[in-house]
Amino acid sequence: MSGRLLSPDELEASLRQIGAERYHSRHPFHKLMYQGNLNRGQLQAWALNRYYYQCRIPVKDATLIARLPTSELRRVWRRRLHDHDGDEPNTGGIARWLRLTDGLGLDRDYVTSMAGLLPITRFAVDAYVEIVRERSILEAIGSCLTELFSPAIIAERVGGMLANYDFVTAETLGYFTPRLDQAPMDAEFALDYVKENARTPEQQAAVLAVLRTKCDILWAMLDGLYLAYVDPRLVPPGAFVPADR
Amino acid sequence: MSGRLLSPDELEASLRQIGAERYHSRHPFHKLMYQGNLNRGQLQAWALNRYYYQCRIPVKDATLIARLPTSELRRVWRRRLHDHDGDEPNTGGIARWLRLTDGLGLDRDYVTSMAGLLPITRFAVDAYVEIVRERSILEAIGSCLTELFSPAIIAERVGGMLANYDFVTAETLGYFTPRLDQAPMDAEFALDYVKENARTPEQQAAVLAVLRTKCDILWAMLDGLYLAYVDPRLVPPGAFVPADR
Repeated sequence: MSGRLLSPDELEASLRQIGAERYHSRHPFHKLMYQGNLNRGQLQAWALNRYYYQCRIPVKDATLIARLPTSELRRVWRRRLHDHDGDEPNTGGIARWLRLTDGLGLDRDYVTSMAGLLPITRFAVDAYVEIVRERSILEAIGSCLTELFSPAIIAERVGGMLANYDFVTAETLGYFTPRLDQAPMDAEFALDYVKENARTPEQQAAVLAVLRTKCDILWAMLDGLYLAYVDPRLVPPGAFVPADR
Repeated sequence: MSGRLLSPDELEASLRQIGAERYHSRHPFHKLMYQGNLNRGQLQAWALNRYYYQCRIPVKDATLIARLPTSELRRVWRRRLHDHDGDEPNTGGIARWLRLTDGLGLDRDYVTSMAGLLPITRFAVDAYVEIVRERSILEAIGSCLTELFSPAIIAERVGGMLANYDFVTAETLGYFTPRLDQAPMDAEFALDYVKENARTPEQQAAVLAVLRTKCDILWAMLDGLYLAYVDPRLVPPGAFVPADR
C-alpha cells in the first residue's frame, strides 16, 4: 500500500481522486433522487435512515474531541457540536433534519425511535464512530474528509429535489443551507491537518485508506436503501415499509 | 420492550420465534444458493465474503473469553477457539473454509487479502465483534444463539449445493460437516446460560434484542451479496467482480 512520500499537494490530489471514484454522488440512488425518479415513500426511507447518521455525528465528534491533545484542536472541533446539536432547543443539524422528515410526512416519534432503520444503516454508521474511537487521531480526522465533496452533492440534491418533487419545499430542505458554509470550513481544517501531519508514506496510506472506508460507509447506506426500496425491494425483517410504493 | 418475566421455556420459545422470522435461511440469496440457481461467480462472491466472518469468529470468541469471570466458563468457551483455529496448521474452521474457496476456484492470496470484500460484509461482521466486546456478558453469549438454527440451514445448503452444482464436491464442503456437531453443542450451552441468567424482564428483553441484531447481521451479509451479485448487480467500488457472471 505505502509507496514513496507524497508532497502535501500530491496527497490532496490523491484524496480528491478517491472522492471522484467512490463518493456516494456516483451511487444510482442519489441519481434517482435528484433526477426526480423516487416516490415519496422512497424519499421517506432515505430521510429516516439518514437520521441515524445525523444523530451519530455529534457522538462521533465528541468522541474525537475527547482524544484531541490541545485546547486549540478541541476548540476548533467543538464548532461541529454547535452545528449539529444547536445552541438552544430545536436548532442545529439534527433538529433541522427532523423538519425534513416532518416535511416528508413521517411521524416524528417513529423517526426518533429508530425502530424502522435498515440494519445496514446502523452497521455502516456505527463503523464510522468506531473509526474515530479506535484509530489514530490522524485517521479519525481524515475520516471527515468526505466533507470536501459534500457541497457538490448538496447542490445537486437540493436543486433536483426542489425542481422535481412538488411535495418538497425549500423549508423542508433547510437542513442543507448552513451545511454549504459549514462543510467547506470543516473540510479545509481537516485537509490542512492531514497535509501537515501525514509525514510518512505509512501515515499517508492510512489517511487515504480511511477516506476510502468513509466513502464505503456512505455508499453502503445507499446500497441498503436501493436494495430495500428501489430494486428488488427486499425489505429486511422489521424495517420501514413505506405507505407509498 | 420489556414486559412481564418469562419462564425459561417461554424465553426459549421467544428466541426460537425470532429465528423462525429473521434467520437468514429465509433470505432469497440462500434460497437461490441451495436451489441451484447461482452461478460459480456468485458462489465465489458468497464464499469470499463469508471468509471474513469465519476469520472474525475466533477474535469474537477470544474477546468474550477475556471477559468471562471463571475458569469454568472460559474452558467451555475455549472449545470454540480449537474448533475455528484448529490444533495444528491447516486444521480448524478457517482452514477448512479456505478449502471451500479453493474448490470454487478463488485465488487463496486474493481471498486472504480481503481486498475484494463488500464493505457491507465488513461493517456487519465488525458489528458482531463489537457486541461481544461492548455489551453485557449475557448479551455477548446471547448473540451466539443463531447457532440454534444453523444445523437446518447447513443441511439445506450442503444437500442443495451437492445436488445442483457439478463443480461442488463433498470435500469442498468439508467445512460444514464438523459444524453439524459443534454448533448444537455450543448452542445448547449458550441457551442454558441465557435461560438461567436472564432473570429480569429487562435482561430477557436484552437477550431477545441481541438475537434479533445477530440475525440482522447475517441477513445484511446476504443483502450485500444479493445487491452486488444477483440483482441489480450493483458492485460497490473496489469489490470483487466475478469472472463468471
